Amino acid sequence: MNLLLLHPDDHLEGDRWSIAGRRACHVRDVLGLTAGASLRAGLVNEGVGEAVLLDDDGQRMTLSFSPSQAPPAPLPLTLILALPRPKMLKRILIDAASLGIKRIILLNSWKVEKSYWHTPELHAGLLREKLILGLEQSADTQLPELLLRDRFKPFVEDELPALIAGSRALLAHPGAHPSMPMNLQEAVTLAIGPEGGWTDYETGQLIAAGFHCHAFGQRILRVETALPALVGRIMALP
Amino acid sequence: MNLLLLHPDDHLEGDRWSIAGRRACHVRDVLGLTAGASLRAGLVNEGVGEAVLLDDDGQRMTLSFSPSQAPPAPLPLTLILALPRPKMLKRILIDAASLGIKRIILLNSWKVEKSYWHTPELHAGLLREKLILGLEQSADTQLPELLLRDRFKPFVEDELPALIAGSRALLAHPGAHPSMPMNLQEAVTLAIGPEGGWTDYETGQLIAAGFHCHAFGQRILRVETALPALVGRIMALP
Repeated sequence: MNLLLLHPDDHLEGDRWSIAGRRACHVRDVLGLTAGASLRAGLVNEGVGEAVLLDDDGQRMTLSFSPSQAPPAPLPLTLILALPRPKMLKRILIDAASLGIKRIILLNSWKVEKSYWHTPELHAGLLREKLILGLEQSADTQLPELLLRDRFKPFVEDELPALIAGSRALLAHPGAHPSMPMNLQEAVTLAIGPEGGWTDYETGQLIAAGFHCHAFGQRILRVETALPALVGRIMALP
Repeated sequence: MNLLLLHPDDHLEGDRWSIAGRRACHVRDVLGLTAGASLRAGLVNEGVGEAVLLDDDGQRMTLSFSPSQAPPAPLPLTLILALPRPKMLKRILIDAASLGIKRIILLNSWKVEKSYWHTPELHAGLLREKLILGLEQSADTQLPELLLRDRFKPFVEDELPALIAGSRALLAHPGAHPSMPMNLQEAVTLAIGPEGGWTDYETGQLIAAGFHCHAFGQRILRVETALPALVGRIMALP
């Protein structure tokens, strides 16, 4: 936790804020802070700055905080990801949020097990919690937008064209394709398939929608390894 | 598991091999293969090819296999990593091996908790197991060399100069440094610090040994996110 991320619900009045639970425990037990100490903080979807710990009764903490600076620049990358297995999803969301990705679409694919769509991990509150952990890691405040699309065809036909308009749409795909581009500062949409890859039909649909295939090494990587490796290559990290 | 990785201990005679346990369960239950089926296989530190499942008594499997092709090209990158927390170490080793890294040095740093050096996770057998999982993921056979160095100064003064000779030695470091280079095909040594970073003394020692500081974005990433992101940027993936 490199930033104490405050939420509107934490607001008392004026510049006063109150926290309890996980965040208070972290400030108290991991950072070892007591009344009078200051720490880096931010308000969800707003700015960042220094907070001062005013009081700690062992349960609730009161802090003063006013945002004074802009949060880190977002990464101009939209991620379209075949729904990963639930165990992996958590880590991928934390990683995606910490890398600065601000729009994530979890999409169905032929090779996504149907049961993945019915796991408790897909509960909106749990997904938001992972994104929050990613923001706290990278000292960011801007919560990514997360869309769940459990039908491939209607998404690709009806929503995707508008979504990728004005961006470079990149598909990591094995074969004799140009290498993945590097160090882009423009808007990018990156599609990452499931374990075993998109089917030929799905690949064809994505290409028809405007995606271009690019090679990214010969090795088969786990999605959670491929995501940061692809982002590190493709994007100029601000 | 994208490759059945055989070990010398599995050898019967001629082209006959015998496996049991985790690998046999995977072939039987996940891949669903029965006698007569073929699958991708390799021999540790040797070649890859097709194996044929000859017999399965529900416990042990017998296969025929002869290496016929070279394994994937290694990544010419040596990784020097401040010893991560044990929970993270496993994932980092799997990732490093799957990315094709062939030499990994786990190094002490002021900010590495002393207890990390005394955890069961550092047992050589467990570390090797994680590297094996990474090889099975990326269909590789060449086991990375793994060195544990629990004293920073003697390593940096006595071993590091020979280790980085002939390579570009890169240190990801916040500040006004040139951007991390991209798409290198030459030999690289990459040093990644602990949570909280190397101390000024340690950074000075690494620079004195020949490392150059490079910026890599403004965000604070977890080591397990930073590693694939850095590798994806710096190296031309073969």
